[in-house]
Amino acid sequence: MSASTITRVLLNNYVPSGSAKISDFQIVQAPAPTKEQLKENEVILRPLYLSVDPYQRNRLSGAKESYIPMYQKGQPISNSLVATKGQPISNSLVATVIASTSGEFQEGDLVIDGGGKWETEYVARAGAIKKAPVYPGINPRDYVGVLGMPSFTAYVGMTVVAEPKAGETILVSSASGAVGQMVVQLAKARGLRVVGVAGSDDKIEYLKSIGADAAFNYKTCGSLEDAIKRAAPEGIDIYFDCVGGELLDAALANINEFARIVVCGAITQYNLSSGEEGYGVKNTLNILIKSAKMQGFTIGGYFGTKIQGEFIEHVSKLYDEGKIKYRMSETVGLENGAQAILDLFEGKNVGKSVIKA
Amino acid sequence: MSASTITRVLLNNYVPSGSAKISDFQIVQAPAPTKEQLKENEVILRPLYLSVDPYQRNRLSGAKESYIPMYQKGQPISNSLVATKGQPISNSLVATVIASTSGEFQEGDLVIDGGGKWETEYVARAGAIKKAPVYPGINPRDYVGVLGMPSFTAYVGMTVVAEPKAGETILVSSASGAVGQMVVQLAKARGLRVVGVAGSDDKIEYLKSIGADAAFNYKTCGSLEDAIKRAAPEGIDIYFDCVGGELLDAALANINEFARIVVCGAITQYNLSSGEEGYGVKNTLNILIKSAKMQGFTIGGYFGTKIQGEFIEHVSKLYDEGKIKYRMSETVGLENGAQAILDLFEGKNVGKSVIKA
Repeated sequence: MSASTITRVLLNNYVPSGSAKISDFQIVQAPAPTKEQLKENEVILRPLYLSVDPYQRNRLSGAKESYIPMYQKGQPISNSLVATKGQPISNSLVATVIASTSGEFQEGDLVIDGGGKWETEYVARAGAIKKAPVYPGINPRDYVGVLGMPSFTAYVGMTVVAEPKAGETILVSSASGAVGQMVVQLAKARGLRVVGVAGSDDKIEYLKSIGADAAFNYKTCGSLEDAIKRAAPEGIDIYFDCVGGELLDAALANINEFARIVVCGAITQYNLSSGEEGYGVKNTLNILIKSAKMQGFTIGGYFGTKIQGEFIEHVSKLYDEGKIKYRMSETVGLENGAQAILDLFEGKNVGKSVIKA
Repeated sequence: MSASTITRVLLNNYVPSGSAKISDFQIVQAPAPTKEQLKENEVILRPLYLSVDPYQRNRLSGAKESYIPMYQKGQPISNSLVATKGQPISNSLVATVIASTSGEFQEGDLVIDGGGKWETEYVARAGAIKKAPVYPGINPRDYVGVLGMPSFTAYVGMTVVAEPKAGETILVSSASGAVGQMVVQLAKARGLRVVGVAGSDDKIEYLKSIGADAAFNYKTCGSLEDAIKRAAPEGIDIYFDCVGGELLDAALANINEFARIVVCGAITQYNLSSGEEGYGVKNTLNILIKSAKMQGFTIGGYFGTKIQGEFIEHVSKLYDEGKIKYRMSETVGLENGAQAILDLFEGKNVGKSVIKA
């Protein structure tokens, strides 16, 4: 089955600050791995769908101190949450087993690799992958989509951090994105009033189609603080923050007593170099005045816990029943993988970004 | 018993921003209230000790929107947590009953008035005051001292918000102040390593005498971020924040994973006018990266709850046994009350500021 050559997406240059460009990456051809090369308990995987995620920006920076390991120059781009510095670069993806020396996996098995590579075929240890369970209505790409890491992030943020109560108002940033669209729908399902913020009219339309009660385009709304006030005149009880910076400040200006600010991302701050100063948030006094809670979390610690099982069961059922939607933006061909990252950072995509290999 | 004239401390001008000055207040003489003026269920109180607190700065501002009611021009200065706009100005103090038409209170009773006035004698409703309970080793001034509102604030912050664990490191700002000195000692009692920050060598000495493992003077330490790093090379797990602004930013730069930032005050931000922008906090990204929690609270909601009973029992016992200290800075004479507020805002006092009437 194996082709004689494969495509790999490598990092060419670290990008400490500013926008990455296509020349910061390298698309190369290489000999395909063969079954004969496999040691015991290894497999050859052929990725079907690969996840593209905002936090990858950090891994491109080459920063010496970060919560996440850096990519290595000349190595494939990846977005694993389990990789460690100095370890092979890895990635979150769903793949087919095309060769195996493991008793656990057979040719044709559908597997999830949280440490997989941006290569059209590669060798993985059997212990590092797991079979993708079969659920009604769940297709292979849903493992990096509605059941993927960002969707799980939305679920943990809403169930563990946000403490939502029916009738409250939630503000969601990057609301049409991989995390945001799930937050919007989980919040609606819990009886909240939802205000979504996004960066294009297409995205605003999508937000309304999935139930947002109000939505505005942060690029055209004028004062963010006033736009939030118009969309949520009764104030906001929860802010689900994926962007940080100015919008966080404007949200803080509009919080109600005992508000919760769920900090799950800060995409506006990721382009900063490690030495550079972040945006200065001026309204932190409101955290005191309103007895508010601002809590950050990263999803890494929740993988493999009971809550992940609950998430998969709950969300796959809702999805199968058509009660939630999950929009994806698909880039076809791993050779276009670098462009997929750049598009994500420029906000070109609506919904979850994935690559169809 | 009643003197023929009394002294009142009135607000002369609102001070929207910057430092207040003595001419913003007015000290006036007025006829003393008489028993004959009392309606049913009223008392005449003679304050013994009055509390002076940082949050009074907000009440001087005349701001239209605030979490706390403003003082009224020409009315006595106060610091009640229960006053409402348009209601008589009030104050937290301990007083002696000198006349009563209430069956509940007799001449000579020691009472606490959370809504009392900065007047050497005044009329109060019996329903608005309560008897000061008798505990071994507790003197009248301890009701605005070790058992007063700021000390209770420290207790609630540590027990409800901070989630302290033995062996962790806590950073405390305004550490020799009314809240801070209690935080330092409660933290030591729970087995934490304590780093205190204060603004004079005298204060630093005091911090060491009450058990702080390290302490530095923010006025002379150079870079705050580096000073924290030197004092807590292992990073900080809890930051007990009474000041906001630059020190909050420097603390955020030094937090460990799962850190808790307890926001109980922001004295550096209180001098701002309501329209003016606050200090821009640049390191909020660390709340995400470190999965930290930053939580504000105000003490108002905890009065009269079970936790207040626990606080009084726990702290009065430790105090009686000499296991905790509580330093106060006493201004003698209510006619010097305005100066006591100004001294507090200039950081001249070590410990809890009180006025001995």
